[in-house]
Amino acid sequence: MKLKFTKMHGLGNDFIVIDAVNQQISLSPEQLRRLADRHLGVGCDQILLIEKAEGDADFRYRIFNADGGEVEQCGNGARCFVRYVHDHGMTDKQQVRIETLSGVVIPELEADGEVTVNMGVPKFDPVEIPFIAEQRAPTYSLSLDDRQVEISSVSMGNPHAVQVVSDLDNAPVLTEGPVIEKHSRFPQRVNAGYMQVVDPHHIRLRVYERGAGETLACGTGACAAAVAGIQRGLLESPVRVSFSTGDLFIRWEGENQPVWMTGPAVAVFDGEIELQF
Amino acid sequence: MKLKFTKMHGLGNDFIVIDAVNQQISLSPEQLRRLADRHLGVGCDQILLIEKAEGDADFRYRIFNADGGEVEQCGNGARCFVRYVHDHGMTDKQQVRIETLSGVVIPELEADGEVTVNMGVPKFDPVEIPFIAEQRAPTYSLSLDDRQVEISSVSMGNPHAVQVVSDLDNAPVLTEGPVIEKHSRFPQRVNAGYMQVVDPHHIRLRVYERGAGETLACGTGACAAAVAGIQRGLLESPVRVSFSTGDLFIRWEGENQPVWMTGPAVAVFDGEIELQF
Repeated sequence: MKLKFTKMHGLGNDFIVIDAVNQQISLSPEQLRRLADRHLGVGCDQILLIEKAEGDADFRYRIFNADGGEVEQCGNGARCFVRYVHDHGMTDKQQVRIETLSGVVIPELEADGEVTVNMGVPKFDPVEIPFIAEQRAPTYSLSLDDRQVEISSVSMGNPHAVQVVSDLDNAPVLTEGPVIEKHSRFPQRVNAGYMQVVDPHHIRLRVYERGAGETLACGTGACAAAVAGIQRGLLESPVRVSFSTGDLFIRWEGENQPVWMTGPAVAVFDGEIELQF
Repeated sequence: MKLKFTKMHGLGNDFIVIDAVNQQISLSPEQLRRLADRHLGVGCDQILLIEKAEGDADFRYRIFNADGGEVEQCGNGARCFVRYVHDHGMTDKQQVRIETLSGVVIPELEADGEVTVNMGVPKFDPVEIPFIAEQRAPTYSLSLDDRQVEISSVSMGNPHAVQVVSDLDNAPVLTEGPVIEKHSRFPQRVNAGYMQVVDPHHIRLRVYERGAGETLACGTGACAAAVAGIQRGLLESPVRVSFSTGDLFIRWEGENQPVWMTGPAVAVFDGEIELQF
């Protein structure tokens, strides 16, 4: 079976995007793993299938991790999805309704080609994060072996511990990040974010992701950092979040409001592969 | 500029193969680095350009590392090269004469689709490896912090320290390998090989490569291990060398003779990329 695909990325988080509307395909977990393998296959963080919607949405969207398991949602993937269906003439709508495992999402293609995604309402209640604390506070003092660090704690569907640093390039992301990730006050572990405030509308960010280590760019981490900074009075919406691979723009109107994330989606190359099994 | 390419691999050592005979191309180091980037580009260990020969060879072959620097030769790359020019109808010769930076090489396509490459004459003189020892010996005792290990030392154009282990899966490749790699008796560092002898014509091998860590398969490491085993009377030519990603077959007739390596070359997918800069 010959399979056509497009390799895309959002700030370095990379995807194999497959049109399963115009191609008859059924991929086994073994085939998904082989496609995702960076040496023996095409290579990607995740595989994104575009399917016909079953309800009244425009498309259905399924996303698989490199291990072949299906996951619910991905902000970077949703941006690539919207660029793909526009670039391939599959829709001319600016707002595209997509069925996902976690419900309908409606990413929007902007005039400049970037894509905006609703990332949901941030949660600050320690019980919901989950984070062990007596009560909600703008910042918490977290005890590490030999020192205390001041963090904000917020959930964007996944838990984040964000701290402000003065020198991001020399921040202890790789040494302290894994210690915070596994800190006993975060029973489901946590993503450790380090942000440097450039001005009230601009931060630089590095994130040590739970289970993955430092990544090129973390969408929920960008939302968590912007929201935490706004809550602490350090930042004002909209916030530009700079990673080494590019920028995300975060808008948040405050308590109980969703976070909107705008960012790029890039098509890298088109390919065709003969699936062997 | 639209560039067509084929992604190939030899036992997981992966290449972007580009036909520069039928495509007018000139790639800058920045473009080579971007192509090799596994998140932002196509992703590969090395980029292989097929060009017209200037002398009486069939083709010229240039190979670039992921950092954009040009290198002399690569056994896995030569196998992929021969498969490519046959699969794309660029030659029907079984023995293909290729100009490389290190002279003309003549890989040969076998009837079963595998490719045989002359890997050169192994060198055992400690000065040529280079390895600090009073005189040449079949094995040497190498002092590590808390123990001695028995190694063979051989150069296949690059230095190798090979030892025999009884349980390859639990061999200390990742812990001891980097210690041997930087051992003071190897002034240009060394590739640390661990082989388990299955029978006199079959070994299993893992290699901690100099500057790269443990890799999926190391062609010169396979030659070094087979040659060392033959010299020690443990193995007989031909030797099947099994890696986790597949097998290489090594033939060696003894002192001052070249080592012949036969192995697979696999085309994974065809792609087309718009180069942006």
